[in-house]
Amino acid sequence: MSDREIDVVGIGNAIVDVLSHADEEFVVAHGLARGTMTLIDAPRAEALYAAMGPGVEVSGGSAANTIAGIASLGGKAGYIGKVSNDQIGGIFRHDIRSAGVRFDTAASVSGVPTARCMIFVTPDAQRTMNTFLGACLELGPDDIDPDLVAHAKVTYLEGYLWDPPLAKQAFLKAARIAHQAGRKVALSLSDPFCVERHRAEFVDLVKNHVDILFANEHEVCALWQVGDFDAALQATRGHCEIAALTRSEKGSVVTGNGEVHVLDAARVAKVVDTTGAGDLYAAGFLYGLTSGRGLYECGRIASLAAAEVISHFGARPETPLTELVLAELG
Amino acid sequence: MSDREIDVVGIGNAIVDVLSHADEEFVVAHGLARGTMTLIDAPRAEALYAAMGPGVEVSGGSAANTIAGIASLGGKAGYIGKVSNDQIGGIFRHDIRSAGVRFDTAASVSGVPTARCMIFVTPDAQRTMNTFLGACLELGPDDIDPDLVAHAKVTYLEGYLWDPPLAKQAFLKAARIAHQAGRKVALSLSDPFCVERHRAEFVDLVKNHVDILFANEHEVCALWQVGDFDAALQATRGHCEIAALTRSEKGSVVTGNGEVHVLDAARVAKVVDTTGAGDLYAAGFLYGLTSGRGLYECGRIASLAAAEVISHFGARPETPLTELVLAELG
Repeated sequence: MSDREIDVVGIGNAIVDVLSHADEEFVVAHGLARGTMTLIDAPRAEALYAAMGPGVEVSGGSAANTIAGIASLGGKAGYIGKVSNDQIGGIFRHDIRSAGVRFDTAASVSGVPTARCMIFVTPDAQRTMNTFLGACLELGPDDIDPDLVAHAKVTYLEGYLWDPPLAKQAFLKAARIAHQAGRKVALSLSDPFCVERHRAEFVDLVKNHVDILFANEHEVCALWQVGDFDAALQATRGHCEIAALTRSEKGSVVTGNGEVHVLDAARVAKVVDTTGAGDLYAAGFLYGLTSGRGLYECGRIASLAAAEVISHFGARPETPLTELVLAELG
Repeated sequence: MSDREIDVVGIGNAIVDVLSHADEEFVVAHGLARGTMTLIDAPRAEALYAAMGPGVEVSGGSAANTIAGIASLGGKAGYIGKVSNDQIGGIFRHDIRSAGVRFDTAASVSGVPTARCMIFVTPDAQRTMNTFLGACLELGPDDIDPDLVAHAKVTYLEGYLWDPPLAKQAFLKAARIAHQAGRKVALSLSDPFCVERHRAEFVDLVKNHVDILFANEHEVCALWQVGDFDAALQATRGHCEIAALTRSEKGSVVTGNGEVHVLDAARVAKVVDTTGAGDLYAAGFLYGLTSGRGLYECGRIASLAAAEVISHFGARPETPLTELVLAELG
């Protein structure tokens, strides 16, 4: 493996999370879409922040969380995403680099602030996300470093990238470069409403551009417009080389190479905050895959990584995941 | 109690904390003064941040933590401190206001950034703090709102305020206004090295300006230049109307009105991060005092508040302290 060779490069919306505890009343009073991600504009972001309780700021972004997880597992990882040259952007850049990730995308200098996601965690550990995309709206094809993508075993894309209008061009450019270099392309469907917003395009992507698909039960049912998980699973199998479908506490199903593995969720003493569960599942899975493990083992590492991140506040691992995997799988 | 009447106004360095886990090796390799607070300049802050692992940003500042604690206990509280008009300053202002605290000090517009404290939490839950004071250096007498101070039962000052040169004038102005209005003045000695830096002035303060003193064992021994706690306790009793001296897991001693109470520390299932222990002890004590409780009960509320904050990462309460006190003391 040459110096430039890496395991996974992630492309996503570079976001700093602002986490706060909130009660059910707050969610109702402010008309929040419980358990999902809603895009908000600057005035709404300001109004919601004014109403929000004291917060904790921590780097987030779906694909960025995944990439930080891969680094925590010992994988070599890179990231492409757009922050602004402001203090929040500096925090994002520091955190992902200090997690051991290559991140060299130029910052926006247009004055648009770095993206923030206000996350309200309710007493049932569920999170409700409200994202102001800010500088993420400026991510475009020029931000894709062809060398980085060509040298990554897997290029991982978050479905949320379909929201900012320029980013889908970046997305398609990266997929093309990856495939030309004989690499794999992975996609996470991100959120059921995100699937609703871009269904036709997502179906085309999954059928024609994506080798490895990540989705939860709600997202994959929305994609194929079917009412139950088994129908969604069958539809997926026909189109993706590998798919990992997650079902919260019901575990996950992994398909590929003609195999279907049904996995239990890893045990968690107390679920504190489900933010990042899907992101870290993808991290564990892709780390397993790029380090040459079989699909069942990939699913187990994925479940362990997801279990770690829901056991505390915030969407990036607090425990070095290498140690966790070593303790459980040897 | 009129609308303008409040329980406690705190004056301190308005700081946003950047918390990170670090091992002992890191502390040694970077020459950090373990368990204490060190002042650092901008280049050192930059170098240390570059070396630091991924962080969590959360509003801090010693007196600000205390004031947020008082609000969490149900007290009416105000705060005076200097942030910049940058994103970090916006976070500080949002968090303290959303905790229910009055905070109207004008932001600095000089371009100097809001203060940050890098806190390294080692596996033994001890914290090592490195503070870049930034905009705090601009807090001066003009920032003291005489009306706010005159309407507060207690004006609470952190010893750290003696570090920025202009702030001590603000400090003395506030003490004068408080006493002229027949109110009490409280001081926390903050840190043993802070006491070393300003010992002569702190002795004068304690003897002539302060009614209620907070200090831990190391700080109060440094103040009176004595080697053991009992000697420090006796020296303190001669000069302060009320004193609360903390001794970590050994509990605390409260003196005043001719009484001496020895209190056990409140139980904690697992100490995660000692950041804010002293700040929240002061919060509990001052809340008790301003709500008319006896000294022993003040010490118990103080111990409960301190126990809550060391049971998680970060220096402000995660659980509403009103509920905690209600559950324990009724």
